Amino acid sequence: MNFPMIMYILGMVLKYEGIFMLIPFITGLIYKENAGFSFAVVGLTSYVSGYLLTRKKPQNQLYFAREGFACVALSWIVMSIVGAMPFVLNKDIPNFIDALFETTSGFTTTGASILSDIEALNKSSIMWRSFTHWIGGMGVFVFILAVLPMAGGYSMYLMSAESPGPTVGKLLPRLRDTAKILYMIYFVMTLLQIIILLIFKMPFFDALTITFGTAGTGGFGIKNDSMAGYSIPIQTTVTIFMILFGVNFNAYYLLLGKNKGDAFKMEEVRWYFLIIFLSIAIITLNIVKQYSGPVEALRHCAFQVGSIITTTGYSTVDFNLWPQLSRTILVMLMFIGACAGSTGGGIKVSRIIMLFKMVGVEMTKIIYPRSAKFVRMDKNVVDDDTVKTVAAYLITYVLIFGVSMFILAFDNLDMVTNFTGIAATLNNIGPGLELVGPSGNFSVFTPVSKLVLIFDMLAGRLELFPLLLLFSPSIWVFKHYKKKNYALKK
Amino acid sequence: MNFPMIMYILGMVLKYEGIFMLIPFITGLIYKENAGFSFAVVGLTSYVSGYLLTRKKPQNQLYFAREGFACVALSWIVMSIVGAMPFVLNKDIPNFIDALFETTSGFTTTGASILSDIEALNKSSIMWRSFTHWIGGMGVFVFILAVLPMAGGYSMYLMSAESPGPTVGKLLPRLRDTAKILYMIYFVMTLLQIIILLIFKMPFFDALTITFGTAGTGGFGIKNDSMAGYSIPIQTTVTIFMILFGVNFNAYYLLLGKNKGDAFKMEEVRWYFLIIFLSIAIITLNIVKQYSGPVEALRHCAFQVGSIITTTGYSTVDFNLWPQLSRTILVMLMFIGACAGSTGGGIKVSRIIMLFKMVGVEMTKIIYPRSAKFVRMDKNVVDDDTVKTVAAYLITYVLIFGVSMFILAFDNLDMVTNFTGIAATLNNIGPGLELVGPSGNFSVFTPVSKLVLIFDMLAGRLELFPLLLLFSPSIWVFKHYKKKNYALKK
Repeated sequence: MNFPMIMYILGMVLKYEGIFMLIPFITGLIYKENAGFSFAVVGLTSYVSGYLLTRKKPQNQLYFAREGFACVALSWIVMSIVGAMPFVLNKDIPNFIDALFETTSGFTTTGASILSDIEALNKSSIMWRSFTHWIGGMGVFVFILAVLPMAGGYSMYLMSAESPGPTVGKLLPRLRDTAKILYMIYFVMTLLQIIILLIFKMPFFDALTITFGTAGTGGFGIKNDSMAGYSIPIQTTVTIFMILFGVNFNAYYLLLGKNKGDAFKMEEVRWYFLIIFLSIAIITLNIVKQYSGPVEALRHCAFQVGSIITTTGYSTVDFNLWPQLSRTILVMLMFIGACAGSTGGGIKVSRIIMLFKMVGVEMTKIIYPRSAKFVRMDKNVVDDDTVKTVAAYLITYVLIFGVSMFILAFDNLDMVTNFTGIAATLNNIGPGLELVGPSGNFSVFTPVSKLVLIFDMLAGRLELFPLLLLFSPSIWVFKHYKKKNYALKK
Repeated sequence: MNFPMIMYILGMVLKYEGIFMLIPFITGLIYKENAGFSFAVVGLTSYVSGYLLTRKKPQNQLYFAREGFACVALSWIVMSIVGAMPFVLNKDIPNFIDALFETTSGFTTTGASILSDIEALNKSSIMWRSFTHWIGGMGVFVFILAVLPMAGGYSMYLMSAESPGPTVGKLLPRLRDTAKILYMIYFVMTLLQIIILLIFKMPFFDALTITFGTAGTGGFGIKNDSMAGYSIPIQTTVTIFMILFGVNFNAYYLLLGKNKGDAFKMEEVRWYFLIIFLSIAIITLNIVKQYSGPVEALRHCAFQVGSIITTTGYSTVDFNLWPQLSRTILVMLMFIGACAGSTGGGIKVSRIIMLFKMVGVEMTKIIYPRSAKFVRMDKNVVDDDTVKTVAAYLITYVLIFGVSMFILAFDNLDMVTNFTGIAATLNNIGPGLELVGPSGNFSVFTPVSKLVLIFDMLAGRLELFPLLLLFSPSIWVFKHYKKKNYALKK
């Protein structure tokens, strides 16, 4: 492992995190809160440490997938720890584990909270909490790549470790241009949502924070009843934007280019909308009796389905009180998740499609042992390595889920709380069912379980492998790397 | 598809099923029950139909994996339907779907029941119910192979489709000898358990039926309280034999040979016992307060752990009332299951080991992209095809689970009932938690859900692919096979 290089990149992350903290700091100044200064203190410390770490570029810039994965995992952990500090300092969340849970939940765009009274927080803290969603949604490295000219081929490894989905959509030959395009789309859509919300008379602070949570598919509410208190036009706007931010961003890129029709031909996008449509249809029929009419049922259903499949996690009603069929469909949507290449979490629609196709290929092999059938996506053959990685992904996913279930069981809560609590964190959604349902929160767990869930949130956001890699002893051997010069051989 | 050949083999199965029905018929004679004659009627019909189908051997004996898989799946369905008839005729289970559920549960060694009052059944019906466990445990084709000289290489495909585990343990060069050895071990162990139970003063009828249920790891009780009413020595004997029948039978074969030590070196067997040991240790500590002392807690714990991991499903206490940690461990054991090459169900210990190793290999590839690391079992490299099939197995497993969850949700029962109900049938265990816990039964579900669970039981017993294959349209094309002569090309 090339540790000097990793420290250098960590330094960059710290620098930018320091800069990002200007936003809650300014919010604090506007609302004349003392709490805002905690962001100044931590932000400045973070910036200076980052500056010191990046003063000299390391000589050995050799950098491979393992460095990329480890670096991204470490950066996200450090980012979350540093991001939690202001909450502890300004006493909004005095307990460190709780603050870490909240910040990790923010950066990973989970939206799960340990707070029971959100409205009691300082405005600057609420702003930071929501802003972490926006940063985490598209990714901090994608951001750095977009703004910084980075020499060396290592940036690809960083981006592939941080971007959601089985493959990295390299839209343009130069990675930096891809990163720029992605952030451009992200930024324009964010702006659009803010403007529409303002037109519908949402207060500016609310429009900003709620949009950050929508864009990153995060889901931290700023009111105790999440989105229930807002007007119907505002709720509808958020519904539409949640679903839009769950679409593979490649589709938007295609819409900007010449062959606009290709955007609608993307297999993943088609399935994504089909699943949303079917879920809304079934659940609306299932819950219609609980509301004053089909229109109200449809409205609440569309909001909740959009919120869960995109792994955002806002809510307008307590879906924990819905009938079992609706609850089960929502739990299944939790696992499916949004499209790859979006800001959403979950297993991702494209992975689910590939898994189904893999089973089909395996069946064909039994029927015709010499057949040469391959997994295809959008008519292209998916290479064998990607297929294997997708399979390994599901296996790892199930194993992490199992281990988490085991540790959480020590808390002696009910099984649905544990199961959906893990599902909600590992898929970066936010609320689960029962005790961690929309009207509950994650403070019911013990600190050990909270740490497990923090791990699950990070593992979910970084798609399992980068984080698991940190547990591999061989990655921590510096000598090994230098002496055998493993990397140079290639 | 070679349909004449499939009909011929189906005929053999029907013939043997007719013969097997002599046992409940004789039971009926001994206990002077009219109900016993239903077995004579159905058994004779089955035998005659089988005789007619097997009078002439088909000329075209070409036979491949697809025929083997389809044949085994069809045979198990036909077997279950025929086996359900006597229950309907003698009015012990007048509803056909319920009778089919009960019989499928018997043959697949699940042990899930729709009956609330088992003791009200005729003795002949109870005997048939338990005897289906014994037939299904080692498999009907393995039985036919052991007693019939079969020409042609097709028998391998039948056995590999019916035997549990990722690979077929061909103990001896000739498949028939392997089948004989397996049934010999099975028979001797069954006899041994009956004798020991008789020594402990169990009534003969009880000893016979309970042993059938243990040997097949089935779990149909013959009393309404399952095994709770029997003496401690009897319960202890059953505990030990349940665990023994969950061991890979290859280990017993090794014990019979020269290198007895190799049996204890089998990776799967070691892990199997380690998992049992750890589960018993943790659960005993967890439940000790609920019982009069550590010895009683240990006794109940060992019984339940042995019953669940081997997917037998007998119970001496209602583990649904245990604390969450114990319940969660039991649910995890449901999924792990017994060893491959045993009569037990579940995902199988060896598959779990392989899945963990696959993740390890995948991680190594990220760290050292050019490494040549392979999955190894018992120090041998597992070939790539087996690894892929194991991965496809888990994926298929998860997908079947998901679809089942969706359909069962329409019944509007609680989520833990649905989840553990599917787990208990797909893993061929028997009881789940909540409504389908040890003191409940599967009559709570609607007919549609029962059919789904019947499918799950069969899919679990035949390890998913054979049953899924029946849904593939290409397998039903006869012309295709003849014209293109796909098979001959190879």
